[in-house]
Amino acid sequence: MHKKPEILHRKTIVQTRQFSVESLSLKFQNGEQREYERLIRGKGHGAVLIVPLLDSETVLLVREYAAGLHRYELGLPKGKLDAGEDCLTAANRELQEEAGYAAHKLHHLTALSLAPAYMEHCIDVVIAEGLYPSKLSGDEPEELDVVPWKLDNLPALLASGECTEARSIAALYLCQDYLNKT
Amino acid sequence: MHKKPEILHRKTIVQTRQFSVESLSLKFQNGEQREYERLIRGKGHGAVLIVPLLDSETVLLVREYAAGLHRYELGLPKGKLDAGEDCLTAANRELQEEAGYAAHKLHHLTALSLAPAYMEHCIDVVIAEGLYPSKLSGDEPEELDVVPWKLDNLPALLASGECTEARSIAALYLCQDYLNKT
Repeated sequence: MHKKPEILHRKTIVQTRQFSVESLSLKFQNGEQREYERLIRGKGHGAVLIVPLLDSETVLLVREYAAGLHRYELGLPKGKLDAGEDCLTAANRELQEEAGYAAHKLHHLTALSLAPAYMEHCIDVVIAEGLYPSKLSGDEPEELDVVPWKLDNLPALLASGECTEARSIAALYLCQDYLNKT
Repeated sequence: MHKKPEILHRKTIVQTRQFSVESLSLKFQNGEQREYERLIRGKGHGAVLIVPLLDSETVLLVREYAAGLHRYELGLPKGKLDAGEDCLTAANRELQEEAGYAAHKLHHLTALSLAPAYMEHCIDVVIAEGLYPSKLSGDEPEELDVVPWKLDNLPALLASGECTEARSIAALYLCQDYLNKT
């Protein structure tokens, strides 16, 4: 395994309401020095992505406005952890806020990074089973559409052009593998 | 389908060497107004992720230092498009720079978003076949390890903890589907 480059200097250079950018001065083991910028999590407590299984063949998706792309995106429910909250508790809360269901069984599957080259952010993936109707009001500006989707019909979901987020797509395939194993 | 919220106001509030943050004032169709921040691509020309197939069962991964997580990450080669470059040309260039191979056949599979809620960024996914040794020197601070991996052994890759990036994981599964279809 490689030895990590040495951090010669690091400094938060920008802080907005939502984003923190850090500059990083690095020396690699071969002597090369480089300046990087990366997004750090700042004051965030982490995030969670939920794969809600209505039954062993059907997942619940939500259609939500996505400001980054300025269009509606169909994907898995997700959200940020509140202070002091663990990822299973956050998953069950977000599931109730976004999809109107709670889960009897929550299973932490894995964690995914977004763009490890320049983002510190990771998201925990939680599989939710044993769903029952339960609604909490969240901070969403409008109600989300809840769309049941058959797990064996992922190609049609991707072909729709409405589901483009790598984290949702990866989690759906990982859930398939998880169900095939159990 | 939903009608998109109206953009009342938008403004670039931060610009660093690598990141541009925009504030967005939105009015949803139900009258709700919200302030968002999002990362915009700024002066970038897009990015490409390559799935290099050494043969129909084997993909080439690279192990590269990832500043966001400050550790080495094993994943698919990728990089930014240069000005005026299309994504297939960029894919073949990055493949030669990062993995030491060029491809006779390049196929644009899809585009993936990262975090559509707060990032404008998307990445084109290109499958590279008919590989032959060809090395270009890039801007990497050090040589990358090139690691052949069997596509039917993705669970071991994920269990290794070295491959966490949602875009790489999604693209590997999408490539499996592509190969099963063709």
